[in-house]
Amino acid sequence: MDEFDWIARYLKPIAPSPEAMGLSNDVGKLLSHSGSVRIATMDTLAAGTHFLKTDPLDLVGRKLVRVNVSDIISKGGLPEQVLLSIALPDGFSEQEFETLCHGIGGELQQRGISLIGGDTIRFSGPLTLTMMMTGRCELKGPTHRNGAKPGDVLIVTGVVGAGYLGLQVARTGNTGVYLDHYRCPEITEEQWAGVISDFATSSLDISDGLLADASHLADASRLAFSIDLDQVPWAAEPSDLEEMLALATGGDDYQALFTVSADRFEKFETLASERGLFFQQVGSVSEGSGVKIHRSGVAIPLPSVKGYTH
Amino acid sequence: MDEFDWIARYLKPIAPSPEAMGLSNDVGKLLSHSGSVRIATMDTLAAGTHFLKTDPLDLVGRKLVRVNVSDIISKGGLPEQVLLSIALPDGFSEQEFETLCHGIGGELQQRGISLIGGDTIRFSGPLTLTMMMTGRCELKGPTHRNGAKPGDVLIVTGVVGAGYLGLQVARTGNTGVYLDHYRCPEITEEQWAGVISDFATSSLDISDGLLADASHLADASRLAFSIDLDQVPWAAEPSDLEEMLALATGGDDYQALFTVSADRFEKFETLASERGLFFQQVGSVSEGSGVKIHRSGVAIPLPSVKGYTH
Repeated sequence: MDEFDWIARYLKPIAPSPEAMGLSNDVGKLLSHSGSVRIATMDTLAAGTHFLKTDPLDLVGRKLVRVNVSDIISKGGLPEQVLLSIALPDGFSEQEFETLCHGIGGELQQRGISLIGGDTIRFSGPLTLTMMMTGRCELKGPTHRNGAKPGDVLIVTGVVGAGYLGLQVARTGNTGVYLDHYRCPEITEEQWAGVISDFATSSLDISDGLLADASHLADASRLAFSIDLDQVPWAAEPSDLEEMLALATGGDDYQALFTVSADRFEKFETLASERGLFFQQVGSVSEGSGVKIHRSGVAIPLPSVKGYTH
Repeated sequence: MDEFDWIARYLKPIAPSPEAMGLSNDVGKLLSHSGSVRIATMDTLAAGTHFLKTDPLDLVGRKLVRVNVSDIISKGGLPEQVLLSIALPDGFSEQEFETLCHGIGGELQQRGISLIGGDTIRFSGPLTLTMMMTGRCELKGPTHRNGAKPGDVLIVTGVVGAGYLGLQVARTGNTGVYLDHYRCPEITEEQWAGVISDFATSSLDISDGLLADASHLADASRLAFSIDLDQVPWAAEPSDLEEMLALATGGDDYQALFTVSADRFEKFETLASERGLFFQQVGSVSEGSGVKIHRSGVAIPLPSVKGYTH
C-alpha cells in the first residue's frame, strides 16, 4: 500500500478542523480555554480481545470513539479532540480501511469531536486501534474516584449487562439488539457531563463490570459500597442469581457510575428529570470497605471474579 | 497477570506529576499556559516493524519517548506530557514489563516530561507501544511544512544515516555505535526548539529518510529543494554513491530538517554557534518542484525509493 495515499484519501476528510492542519503538519494543535480544565484519556482496542475479527469495521470505529467518550463524560467532561493510531495487519485492504475510517469519522462528526493527528502503521499483529481523547471540564477539574462520603447514594445512568449479553450472542453467531450493543455500545448521554460535574462526589464509567468498578470507587474512597441487586436496571431480566451476577460482572457497559450526597439528591433528581435523563439509584455508601451486594436486605456472597480485566 | 498490580508497581512510580493523579483517576489533566500554543503528536512502535524483538526493552522504551520528542522539537515545541498505551503479547513477563517501564520512565524523567495516563492491554500481537506527546510552542504555533520560500537555505541538525547503519548492524547480530543509534536514536537537542521556532520557515524531523522528508517540505511548500550530497554530514563516510544514497534514504535519523531565510542566516548561524549547536547547511530552495540532488554541481538521478515508509 501507499500509506500516504490512504491517509490523504480517508483520514484527512474526517479531520476537517483547523487544529488538524490537514493531518499534514506532523503535529496537531490542542484547544485551550481559560476558565476550564482539560483532561485526556486513551484506550486501545485490539481485534480478538476487545472486538471480534468478524465485527463490521464501521462499528469497530464507532466503538473506539464511544469507549473514550464514555471515559470523558463519566468524569464530568465534554469531549473535544482526538489523536488516532491505527496498526494494520498484513493484508488489510483499502476498502476495509475506508469502512473503518467511515465509522470513526461519522461518530466523531456526530459528537462534534475533532481528529487532529496520529499515526498509521503496518505490523504483524491483529488490527489494533489506539485513541487519545481530550475533554473540557469545569475549573474544579474532573470528578475523582476518591470523593465518596458515608451516606452518599450510588447512581447508574443506564442498563447493566448489555455488553455481556452481546458478547454471548456474538459467540453463538446469532444477531440481535445485544449484539449491537457489544459491537457499538450505547454510552452515557453527553448531557450527563454537566450533571456529573455538578453533583457527583466520585465517578467512573462501567467498563470492567458493575461490581469491579464499584470496588474501584469504594477502594479509592476507603469506604463500603452496598448495592441492592434488585434495584439495578438490568439489560434483560436475569433468570436466576447466577445470571444476575454474570450481568453484574461482564463489563463493557459504558454507563456512568457515581455517588451523590444524600442531602443534594432531591435537587439532583429534579435536574435529571427536567433534562429527561434516565438514572437509577442502586446502592449507598457507608463506613467500612469494599463492595457488598444484597437482595431484599439479604446479603449475597460476592462472586470470586468481580469483573473483566481488559 | 494482574494488570492492576503491574500498573501500580511499575507505571505509577514513573508518573509522579500532580496531573497524573496517580494514574488512578481514569483521566489525566492537560497543562495549559496562557501565552503559548500547545501541540500534540502520536507515534506507534511495534516489535518486528520499528524495533527488533531482541532489542533491550529499556532502550525500546527510551526510543518510544525520543521519536515523539523529535517530532515536538522539530516543530519548535518543548515536550511536556504523555499518555501511553502498552499492548503486551502473551507471555510477556513482569520482569520485561519492569525493564520497559524503567526505560520509558528514565527517559521521561531526564527530559522533564510527565506521564499522565494511558491504557495497558494483553493481545495476540507483538509488543506494540503508542505514545501521545504534548508540547508547548510560542503563540505563533508550530513551524509548518509549507512555509519555505525561494532562496531559503536548508539545514540539518545532526548526522544522516546512523539509523540505516544501525539497522544493518542489528541484522548481522553485531554490535557497535550504530546499533546503539538504531535501538535508541540520538535526536535533535532540545535547545533547538527555540531556534527553530524563531528562525525556521518550514521544518520536520527526518524519520522516513533525508530525501523523502525533504520531499515532504518541497511538496508542502510547492517549491524545489536542492541538496548537495557532499555537504550532508553523513554518520559514516560512504564508500560510493550507492552507499551514500542508502544513507540518504534509510530513515530513522530523528534530526530536524528545516529552512531558514537567506537574509536571516547570518543571525541564525551566530545564535546556533553561541549555544554550541551543531548544524550543517545541506541545500537550498528555489522555484520549481520536488527534490533534486547533486555533487559538485553535477546532478545525480534520484533513487526510485526516497525513503522508508513506517
